[in-house]
Amino acid sequence: MTAEMLKPRFTGARVTRIEDARLLRGQARYLDDIAAPGMLEMAFVRSNRAAARILSIDTSAALRVPGVKAVWTFADIPITLVNSAYPVQQPVLARDEVRHVGELVVAVIAEDRYTAEDAAELVQVKYDPLPPVLDTRAAMTDEPRRVHADRPNRFYHKVQETDGFQQAFAGAPRKLKLTFTTHRQTGVPLETRGCAAMPDPASGRLTVYATHQSPHNFRAQLARVLGLPENLVRVVVPEVGGGFGIKAMFYPEYVVVAEAARRLGRPVKWVSDRTECLLTDAHARDAVHEVEVAFTEDGRIVALRDHVLGDTGAYPFLGFAGAVGEAGWATDMLTGPYKIPYVSITIDCVFSNKAPTGPYRGVGGPIGAQVHEGVVDAIARELQMDPADVRRVNFIGPDDFPYETPTGNVYDPGSYRESLERALALVDYERLRRQQAEWRKQGRYVGIGLCSFVEPSAFAESEAGSIPYEAASVRIEPNGTVTASFGLGPTGQGHETTMAQLIADQLGVDVKDVVVLHGDTDSAPFGGGTGGSRSGTIGGGAAVRAGQELRTKLVKLAAHLLEASEEDIELTEGKAQVAGVPARGLSIRELARIAYTDVGRLPEGMTPGLEVLVRYRPPMAATYSNGIHLAVVEVDVKTGFVRVLDYVVVNDCGKLINPMIVEGQIHGGVAQGIGSALLEELRYDGNGQLVTTSLMDYLLPSSTDVPRMRIEHLETPSAAEGGFKGMGEGSLIGAPGAIANAVSDALAPFGVFVTDLPIRPEQIVRWVRQGA
Amino acid sequence: MTAEMLKPRFTGARVTRIEDARLLRGQARYLDDIAAPGMLEMAFVRSNRAAARILSIDTSAALRVPGVKAVWTFADIPITLVNSAYPVQQPVLARDEVRHVGELVVAVIAEDRYTAEDAAELVQVKYDPLPPVLDTRAAMTDEPRRVHADRPNRFYHKVQETDGFQQAFAGAPRKLKLTFTTHRQTGVPLETRGCAAMPDPASGRLTVYATHQSPHNFRAQLARVLGLPENLVRVVVPEVGGGFGIKAMFYPEYVVVAEAARRLGRPVKWVSDRTECLLTDAHARDAVHEVEVAFTEDGRIVALRDHVLGDTGAYPFLGFAGAVGEAGWATDMLTGPYKIPYVSITIDCVFSNKAPTGPYRGVGGPIGAQVHEGVVDAIARELQMDPADVRRVNFIGPDDFPYETPTGNVYDPGSYRESLERALALVDYERLRRQQAEWRKQGRYVGIGLCSFVEPSAFAESEAGSIPYEAASVRIEPNGTVTASFGLGPTGQGHETTMAQLIADQLGVDVKDVVVLHGDTDSAPFGGGTGGSRSGTIGGGAAVRAGQELRTKLVKLAAHLLEASEEDIELTEGKAQVAGVPARGLSIRELARIAYTDVGRLPEGMTPGLEVLVRYRPPMAATYSNGIHLAVVEVDVKTGFVRVLDYVVVNDCGKLINPMIVEGQIHGGVAQGIGSALLEELRYDGNGQLVTTSLMDYLLPSSTDVPRMRIEHLETPSAAEGGFKGMGEGSLIGAPGAIANAVSDALAPFGVFVTDLPIRPEQIVRWVRQGA
Repeated sequence: MTAEMLKPRFTGARVTRIEDARLLRGQARYLDDIAAPGMLEMAFVRSNRAAARILSIDTSAALRVPGVKAVWTFADIPITLVNSAYPVQQPVLARDEVRHVGELVVAVIAEDRYTAEDAAELVQVKYDPLPPVLDTRAAMTDEPRRVHADRPNRFYHKVQETDGFQQAFAGAPRKLKLTFTTHRQTGVPLETRGCAAMPDPASGRLTVYATHQSPHNFRAQLARVLGLPENLVRVVVPEVGGGFGIKAMFYPEYVVVAEAARRLGRPVKWVSDRTECLLTDAHARDAVHEVEVAFTEDGRIVALRDHVLGDTGAYPFLGFAGAVGEAGWATDMLTGPYKIPYVSITIDCVFSNKAPTGPYRGVGGPIGAQVHEGVVDAIARELQMDPADVRRVNFIGPDDFPYETPTGNVYDPGSYRESLERALALVDYERLRRQQAEWRKQGRYVGIGLCSFVEPSAFAESEAGSIPYEAASVRIEPNGTVTASFGLGPTGQGHETTMAQLIADQLGVDVKDVVVLHGDTDSAPFGGGTGGSRSGTIGGGAAVRAGQELRTKLVKLAAHLLEASEEDIELTEGKAQVAGVPARGLSIRELARIAYTDVGRLPEGMTPGLEVLVRYRPPMAATYSNGIHLAVVEVDVKTGFVRVLDYVVVNDCGKLINPMIVEGQIHGGVAQGIGSALLEELRYDGNGQLVTTSLMDYLLPSSTDVPRMRIEHLETPSAAEGGFKGMGEGSLIGAPGAIANAVSDALAPFGVFVTDLPIRPEQIVRWVRQGA
Repeated sequence: MTAEMLKPRFTGARVTRIEDARLLRGQARYLDDIAAPGMLEMAFVRSNRAAARILSIDTSAALRVPGVKAVWTFADIPITLVNSAYPVQQPVLARDEVRHVGELVVAVIAEDRYTAEDAAELVQVKYDPLPPVLDTRAAMTDEPRRVHADRPNRFYHKVQETDGFQQAFAGAPRKLKLTFTTHRQTGVPLETRGCAAMPDPASGRLTVYATHQSPHNFRAQLARVLGLPENLVRVVVPEVGGGFGIKAMFYPEYVVVAEAARRLGRPVKWVSDRTECLLTDAHARDAVHEVEVAFTEDGRIVALRDHVLGDTGAYPFLGFAGAVGEAGWATDMLTGPYKIPYVSITIDCVFSNKAPTGPYRGVGGPIGAQVHEGVVDAIARELQMDPADVRRVNFIGPDDFPYETPTGNVYDPGSYRESLERALALVDYERLRRQQAEWRKQGRYVGIGLCSFVEPSAFAESEAGSIPYEAASVRIEPNGTVTASFGLGPTGQGHETTMAQLIADQLGVDVKDVVVLHGDTDSAPFGGGTGGSRSGTIGGGAAVRAGQELRTKLVKLAAHLLEASEEDIELTEGKAQVAGVPARGLSIRELARIAYTDVGRLPEGMTPGLEVLVRYRPPMAATYSNGIHLAVVEVDVKTGFVRVLDYVVVNDCGKLINPMIVEGQIHGGVAQGIGSALLEELRYDGNGQLVTTSLMDYLLPSSTDVPRMRIEHLETPSAAEGGFKGMGEGSLIGAPGAIANAVSDALAPFGVFVTDLPIRPEQIVRWVRQGA
């Protein structure tokens, strides 16, 4: 019986999320719910300057507060984080100098958080201010100064150009120049960051609870920084309330907490408050793309040039410099779903006296899509074509797969044109365009925005440092229920459900009989964790393969016991059944009992037990999902308020494991995309002070900003196990461009073309006044 | 490179115990160290009657005590334990009737133990006393009544006789009749029993911390009793301070604690006090062996008859009825190291109104050895031969292996005769006998006692219910250190060290680089736990095999990277080295880094990672260690005090993993054997009240009772992986018989022959008076 012959009962079905039973009842156990007798808590004194030399730190008053156990500066904990690619020194507590507002300066450890915070306020830090580096362009030439004295601010420079670009560009009949900007934003997970460390002075092992997307990466980084072997560090990730990439990074607080637990011999916890999050959770975006496009009279794009300026803030994260990663993704995917033969890419990334940037859902994807979709719509406007038609002219066609982009990506088959047509049909595009014209006559400014995108995901390159595989450890327990363990780091995506669906189908058991464990490096097989939309495809592949291996053993055992041939055994509804002979069957429970505790009945040579550890690596470097977002917005030209009237998503992530979960991902991504396009900005003032330090200032979309969506699925399978493709980021990749293009379209009568996100109401009012 | 070619660096060496760093510093974390916010504690009202009907239980006063959360009787928790082979009902809290002193009647759950105990004292239980069943022989005919109304007291009867026994017995020239008795004893681990349960109301999973020898068995039993699937129960066994078989059983308290945690939604803990332990920890021994032996004039034993009467107390444990297990082992091994062709065995086991009996280190082994060694010494006395000579006449010889005993055991090769000769040489036996004669003339009663034994161990039968295998999950971490996880349940034996030794040698790393985890059913592969001296042989075999599998992969990877042939790769001192070319090598750390995070460099087809799950089942039903104990004692005939003057052990458990740990096992077993022979007795009075409820009454050997020992090792390998044989129980199997024979020898001038253990001073005084 092969996997192909399986009639899946759960895979592809709208199985109710197993984890929702606890999440929706408020019974989940997050980091801040971790408590242990004798646990200390930590608070930090953070820099209130963007750039300054530290003249003195006086901790004496803080140390006198009853309940305070320790007050540490860099002198007490002289540990420095160093990104191996961009080796600037990031002291976990500031050494002689502070480089951004929010940087850690002093750690206060006390019996409880209240005491720690009160004592932190008594710490006196004297600063000698320095001129802050805040402007990206100026920073390129080390103006006004260097952020790190020993390195130029421009720490990264890359040029990539297709052979023949210059000639193609020069020879094209039409050209356009556009500058796209996305300002600083961040993921703002509902649960803030934190960690808690518990020492075992006896064995020397340290258990660290962390809100993190990759337990094993976290362990590797912490162990390396503390100089501990990995087998003496146990990382446990409890329930995580959202990550969005923010929680894939390693932050200096974790080092201080872990080291405090080791030195003081007591559990120590720190959980950030919202202001700390906005100050120091990985910031993102903050890039300028200077674009030139060359195209034909019929709208065919010939060549595309992009010069990216990215600001990575004061320090690169370990293993990830935000600006480099974002610019890399955005330009690598610069041609999106289009057959553009020539590209020229230049990337410059600088340090500044702002908070470090890192990954945020989709990384450079939203900017990349904003660029190529902005370019397509600008061409449409220039040539007075319908934006849909410019897309039709340029799409990679069904016969082009596997398609290699000018940046070297090899796309697996997708449904670019088909997605567009489905989306247009869903809104009755022709009718809608007529309606739009009607409304305009009535003074209603309604716009239609499209955003086609390709989402690279489930990265499985074999280059050094990458983890292009995932493992599943699956055990059928002696009583026939199933326990599966993964190195994934779910932050709410529903992996417990999707992995259980895949395993249940292989074993012919109920999805409720499969318990999925994760987050504990002691029980989980080594894995890369969650990020880059890899869990469903790579983790899911491991789940399927592990299920297959157990299935093969179950079938062999059942055939032996039932005296039937293996080909005739079906696993279904918790039983192994001889096909067509209802009387001849054995429950999985009975097979499990025999496999573990009645091993005299096993066939010759069969190992006892039903327990496998399987590692899966997809056969390709990445999968490429695709989709299109279509937004209909109305702009109130008096107030600048943008209302989303309609929203359609056509998404193709290959074979669906659970459409309900896929749709949940799309709902969330669109909501974040609306925030990204219309609301969210981390804004620094001229002194480098972050002025958006609460959710009153950093505006998130609420339920009134997010429309009902219509979602359709296409399923163009990948060559990965199960035909899955990653899809966790596509919705945030598609949404900002769709909103931007819709606003441009609405405000076309005023000559407005949006290239700067987020679009603020005051800006709209200004544009309308200028254009009217 | 094969395993045979390895030069082990750690296996066989006196490696310092890794776990001692925490144990000796008092830093280990035992069950009672488990604390959790909101944890409740439990105390029990226990029966103070051996047999009575319960007329009424008044819990009202207890319920009024502030801090009391619940007071439960059987009506509240109507759960009953049932042994599938002997299906009498054991309510977890007594239902209508109590059947032994110490039986649980009422559970009190309160904010702390003090409150719970105070409230327990306020519970009023009214009893209608019944005549208790206390005498084993009377119980056979249901006198004075049945313990369980629906079943005869004699619940087990078995007869086994070699064909031709009657004729052989009748035809032998000499016969002797002897009755051997061992009274009730128990294991008395330093750490008392207990458990703590923590519910997760959200996932429905229950985590139970338990002091237990088999995490997976405990989970299976608890899950079955509570009606939970096994994947919703997590069992964590923290440090365990001694088990000795006692902690291999499943006790009713555990059910009440787990159910309380589930119902009250809070962590609940119970730890027994010493009196509770003495009342209800599995009692053991308590058997009478009525023996007849037929032999020739030269001391050759022809036929041996044994009728065993065993008392299992009020209830069988789940999966193990103490008296049946003990009588079974004792009679199965009745012929010990001797070539006795004919046996006739009858076993009768009864219920009584005493505490349930279960396994205690060596189970029936000490009694079996007491019997066959008593028989040999009785023959020697009868024929006026030297006891060593009677042994020499009867030993199974080196050419007899594999030797099948009349009870069907197939012994692997051992060193029976050689052990005896080594022990005799160690004490200069001839000189010692002359010295003894000298002393006797001086009125000093010194005796020499021998006890040869065969220890069956590492049971790996394939009969239903047995777990004849063990698994090792071993991972080389990305930084090159090693984490290994086992389903074993160490109680102080040093498995973390021995398993690390075996794995380190396979991988060529330092033993300190191997962390061994165990005790957590979430992280450990399924295993049978610790008991029957199986961990070293079966668990050790799994460790070796897992190490070999990883070794093979490391060698293959190193050969590929170093462009060498696999045959030329040596793993040693943390490096893979091309033999004879010091410059060509790669550290295990670098190999691990590549295997996990630089997988483009792996050879074609190699799976990333270095993580294996290996299950090992030995090729034989059991291994058979052997040895001999030689005790020299002096008896003060005025006071009856027995002093051990010299003690020699020659032990053969096949290949040694760590001689220091083997010797530690011997030291402890001999200490317990001296207690068993001279001190320990759980004594019931005529009403069925246990009168030995503290360590003032139940006497344990102290350091002044235990002599320095001389230990020699022989190493006759088994056919199991590594040539290991189990040895955890042999020392307690050998010691009581050696002491008994030594006391008999010392008191031979008074005609004393000891068959009744323990030997109490007042009995010695009585014997001497009678014999003098």
